[in-house]
Amino acid sequence: MKAVAMPTVSRVAVCGGTHGNELAGIYLVREMLKKRADGTEPVSVVTVMSNSRAAQLCVRYVETDLNRCFTRAALSAPVSETSPYEMIRSQELNALLGPKASAQAVDLLCDLHNTTANTGLCLITYSDHDWICLHICKHLKHMQFPYMLDICYAKAYLCPTSILFLSAMEIGPQPHGVVRSAIFSAMQEGVQLMMDWICQFNSGMLFEGGWVDVYTMVKNIDYPRDSETHVITAAVHPDLQDRDFCLLHPGDPMFLCFSGETLRYRGKEALYPFFINEGAYYEKGVALSLARKRRVQIPSWFVNVDEPK
Amino acid sequence: MKAVAMPTVSRVAVCGGTHGNELAGIYLVREMLKKRADGTEPVSVVTVMSNSRAAQLCVRYVETDLNRCFTRAALSAPVSETSPYEMIRSQELNALLGPKASAQAVDLLCDLHNTTANTGLCLITYSDHDWICLHICKHLKHMQFPYMLDICYAKAYLCPTSILFLSAMEIGPQPHGVVRSAIFSAMQEGVQLMMDWICQFNSGMLFEGGWVDVYTMVKNIDYPRDSETHVITAAVHPDLQDRDFCLLHPGDPMFLCFSGETLRYRGKEALYPFFINEGAYYEKGVALSLARKRRVQIPSWFVNVDEPK
Repeated sequence: MKAVAMPTVSRVAVCGGTHGNELAGIYLVREMLKKRADGTEPVSVVTVMSNSRAAQLCVRYVETDLNRCFTRAALSAPVSETSPYEMIRSQELNALLGPKASAQAVDLLCDLHNTTANTGLCLITYSDHDWICLHICKHLKHMQFPYMLDICYAKAYLCPTSILFLSAMEIGPQPHGVVRSAIFSAMQEGVQLMMDWICQFNSGMLFEGGWVDVYTMVKNIDYPRDSETHVITAAVHPDLQDRDFCLLHPGDPMFLCFSGETLRYRGKEALYPFFINEGAYYEKGVALSLARKRRVQIPSWFVNVDEPK
Repeated sequence: MKAVAMPTVSRVAVCGGTHGNELAGIYLVREMLKKRADGTEPVSVVTVMSNSRAAQLCVRYVETDLNRCFTRAALSAPVSETSPYEMIRSQELNALLGPKASAQAVDLLCDLHNTTANTGLCLITYSDHDWICLHICKHLKHMQFPYMLDICYAKAYLCPTSILFLSAMEIGPQPHGVVRSAIFSAMQEGVQLMMDWICQFNSGMLFEGGWVDVYTMVKNIDYPRDSETHVITAAVHPDLQDRDFCLLHPGDPMFLCFSGETLRYRGKEALYPFFINEGAYYEKGVALSLARKRRVQIPSWFVNVDEPK
């Protein structure tokens, strides 16, 4: 595979608190904000508390999920004082970090999230040819950092901006409204390694290509529910709980009903579950998601110092 | 120690959803409510969704913590339509299950709770001579059920009613807003064993006395905070996280600051930590509680069929 030359990554944004009760990202951003830039940094980093009001209240969102407010329609909708806080905030963030998909937007955005699921560290991107994200992912693995890569073809509104490259860093398990030291440290290390990679890349280092395992989302599965009341009638089966990214075979236990009955995975294809029993997804009707794994070849990379961005 | 004769336990209440985002108790109560009593039950059980509105919204409480609304003052305060929902609800529950400390009140109340801390199953009572609770605790141990007994001299307003005997059954770790199948099953088993014990006791069985380990609360410890903003500056140290009821010695790591510094336990006495990093206690200024362990001798028990209650 031919080596690819790219412009430098000169402006980076690190966002925490897009969901106000995912505390590792919130405390990491607070720590980063304490360290004032002195102009000698090799990369310009904008650090942002995305949903500061929700973070203050320690809730996922105040009026509506901020992380669903970055569609083109939402970003161009007229807003007033009476608009939901998150609709106003998404436009503020778009002005600060974007405008989305414009030349003025930051080059790379890392949005920090936590999950109650046992995902480990997981980079989320929205295409399988986001080479920079794949290279960073490979770099994390190279450093023997525990991580899982999850690439899904979700709609682009899942992240504040979609500029040159974009990525969410998701780490679990951590209850919402709680910060666990090991999860905080993993996130801090993940962000630091990402920054190291960017600095090395910008300095002209050639990064070897290779293969990266990519988990591509196939579908969501809801909890079993009472047909009349829609109340959940089962929890994720103990044999499946915490086994994110472990292959689920047809016939494997999937749910254990509160009445005692086991319900099994009835799909025809073995797939990889992730976001198993994520707390915030009860309201979205998602008990877990399923992905297909494949190996993606990534080209060697180097910065093209002659080519203006 | 002399055997003690006691009246039968004829009316029992099982409450879930006193905190509306502690889901194991909520789903267990929903299951129990599906099974209509047919009059043949050996014990009359009242099953209650304590804070139904908070459970509907999946939040700890709507306006104020219901589990702090059972003081005598709160129960006798005049309420109107504009009073906080939980103030009204506590008086409704007192009418249904009490009145508190009266002869009409239920004999035993089991209030189901979950915690993000790794407590296992933990019975909470508010004195060290609540023999029925200690006997039930011993019974759970006898059945090789994983549990921890935690008795604290907390004020009596921590539980909906204080009648003959009262107890909260607390199980963790489980994130709030999430139900984990193994935690649900442990709670279901705990309630079933408690019911079995009551039936055996009422039938005239003599329960041997013996010794039970009792953890008595000594004090709470808050997170380190910024002196100006009061924002938390550290998380529970990884060496302490999840080690509820494991002895903490002077000098042991207690917190890991987000800046990297380790803070140690500076007490003079080795104590047993519990409710380590409980999500709901951030707002209450409690990172963990510390307890002293001691062995309490409990007398043999039998029901006095001749003695009217």
